[in-house]
Amino acid sequence: MSGRFDTKEYRARLRRAQKLMADQQLGALFLTTEPEVRYFTGFLTRFWESPTRPWFLIVPATGEPVAVIPSIGAALMGKTWISDIRCWSAPDPSDDGVSLVIDALKETGGPVGVPKGHESHVRMPLGDLERIAQAVDLTDDRGIIRSLRELKSPAEIDRIETACQIAGRAFQRVPEIAAKGVPLAQVFRDFQRLCLEEGADWVPYLAGGAGPSGYDDVISPATDRPLNTGDVLMLDTGLVHAGYFCDFDRNWSIGKPAPATRAAYGKLIEATRAGFEAAKPGARACDVFQAMDRIVGSGDAGRLGHGLGMQLTEWPSLIPADDTELRPGMVLTLEPGIQTQARRILVHEENIVITETGARMISPPAPGELPVL
Amino acid sequence: MSGRFDTKEYRARLRRAQKLMADQQLGALFLTTEPEVRYFTGFLTRFWESPTRPWFLIVPATGEPVAVIPSIGAALMGKTWISDIRCWSAPDPSDDGVSLVIDALKETGGPVGVPKGHESHVRMPLGDLERIAQAVDLTDDRGIIRSLRELKSPAEIDRIETACQIAGRAFQRVPEIAAKGVPLAQVFRDFQRLCLEEGADWVPYLAGGAGPSGYDDVISPATDRPLNTGDVLMLDTGLVHAGYFCDFDRNWSIGKPAPATRAAYGKLIEATRAGFEAAKPGARACDVFQAMDRIVGSGDAGRLGHGLGMQLTEWPSLIPADDTELRPGMVLTLEPGIQTQARRILVHEENIVITETGARMISPPAPGELPVL
Repeated sequence: MSGRFDTKEYRARLRRAQKLMADQQLGALFLTTEPEVRYFTGFLTRFWESPTRPWFLIVPATGEPVAVIPSIGAALMGKTWISDIRCWSAPDPSDDGVSLVIDALKETGGPVGVPKGHESHVRMPLGDLERIAQAVDLTDDRGIIRSLRELKSPAEIDRIETACQIAGRAFQRVPEIAAKGVPLAQVFRDFQRLCLEEGADWVPYLAGGAGPSGYDDVISPATDRPLNTGDVLMLDTGLVHAGYFCDFDRNWSIGKPAPATRAAYGKLIEATRAGFEAAKPGARACDVFQAMDRIVGSGDAGRLGHGLGMQLTEWPSLIPADDTELRPGMVLTLEPGIQTQARRILVHEENIVITETGARMISPPAPGELPVL
Repeated sequence: MSGRFDTKEYRARLRRAQKLMADQQLGALFLTTEPEVRYFTGFLTRFWESPTRPWFLIVPATGEPVAVIPSIGAALMGKTWISDIRCWSAPDPSDDGVSLVIDALKETGGPVGVPKGHESHVRMPLGDLERIAQAVDLTDDRGIIRSLRELKSPAEIDRIETACQIAGRAFQRVPEIAAKGVPLAQVFRDFQRLCLEEGADWVPYLAGGAGPSGYDDVISPATDRPLNTGDVLMLDTGLVHAGYFCDFDRNWSIGKPAPATRAAYGKLIEATRAGFEAAKPGARACDVFQAMDRIVGSGDAGRLGHGLGMQLTEWPSLIPADDTELRPGMVLTLEPGIQTQARRILVHEENIVITETGARMISPPAPGELPVL
């Protein structure tokens, strides 16, 4: 799976970017992160796991993108639609691509936009970025990258939906691997195996928890504590298919759940339905938050869902302060959480896409009653 | 597996950092990346996969570290030895931890060191970093983080070695999953499954390739092309055990290899041995490079090995320009590559630790002859 779309997909992205650059009077965009570079090129590799080498893409206001990359990536970038590929032998402590970047940026006219806003970072040494900033007029990208990536194309939605289906099949098989007495760490390992068996390319993210009538938090690594009767087990995966993530979870009760636990789970399903109903074109991210928050309260997580796509989490955020208008093509998670007895929590998550007529569920919906293992 | 060491390990790291800060007259270190934060705290979570929330650690020149983190991480950080934990409900578009960071940094005296050198980046929105830089004197960390992390403790080496053993067992089982006719993408999925079955917590990195008498490059994702007689298959994994990586590869011939392929593989083994012999305390990174380069040439990758530990690749680099002196406790990869006929390559990789008396192999050494599937 090369992960590359048809060239026309990238040309359409470039056209949209260049229109926004013209509106904002920017001469170019300067991009450094995996999703930013891949968005315009289709360059898909797990090599980004190595922090050694920086990778750069310059998207000019007119003309075609310029990739300034370590020569180890030349063969792979050569398979994409990008024709202007400039390489150096990295790592080079004396000049790790900086001169090549400055030259390429100077060929463009006007200020250079860099993503500086929330959920962004610049993936290169700060010292080298400072050298570039001395030679070139770097400014904020005016939110262009966010506004482009927030709307998914049909081809992108198709991949996210496939990732959701793979995870759905893996979740169906959890009774094979989880039962009273099995250590949670073993469940984590086995669930990742199920995701691979069902077709995931890889499993960058797995979180979860297990505890009596709920879990402590949703970000801790698994311990070797065995599952016990009365536990609620939760698994939350962000697996990848062809470079696109799903992000949803499922809960199970180990043995028959207490009435309060069943009721709390019911509230989560109810809140998810309310979020689904609210997620119509023209509604705002905060409206979807409010629809769910009225039922469950927002808790520690601070938000009740978010965008997803090339990354596990993307803009917008379903929080009170995010008034992003929902538009067809946005892919979102609905992720209500609820406090149960004894300061424990339950969370539930589904994935949806916004269409012209309302939301469409793309994760296979969870059962309305807490399933029992 | 919580991934946390004894508190004395973190106290020792803090003492070493504070001695270096005193030497460099820094008031604090300001840290934003997963390995930097975990190095001083033991905070281990896959939640960093989400780019939404920034996480900050301030290591003052005197006193104890201050964690400034989203409240979703408070419970987990509360399980570490860190007692000064300051939280906000993230994401907060109006102030995503920035005021808390500025306040905490102002409590320290003197300039604040930020890693700015190679293989580093600052993981937070650039706009927010600029706000902090307006309020606080930010400067380079003078290489302190690199010099600390480059030397591994016995407890760290033990974890890397365990990761190597897990990968070694998975590589032994490759005959179960790879044979003529099996698509490479299926081999990739199945090999990740084997890594999990053998005890990996997760498999952040898998690269590889397959082709007649060698592969095109070592960073492309796997395609559905079936393995064929005469192919060399290579798998290179960075799996994680308790927060620490291994990073090595193995090669197999599909059917009997051509004499030239066997000879090329023999050169790689010979180069690895030469690198191993050269990797003694007091030698420099470039000396180890030269020992291998004399046998194989350095090719496109630009380097013939690197450090590893909390990340797949770390300092130093085995390149001509890196004169880092090797010291006991450094963990390195030896990674020679060779050009074969028809512009194809073969690469080989082992993991070693530098001891007082020389190198010790921590990956189970590959066979001297190219194994046949």
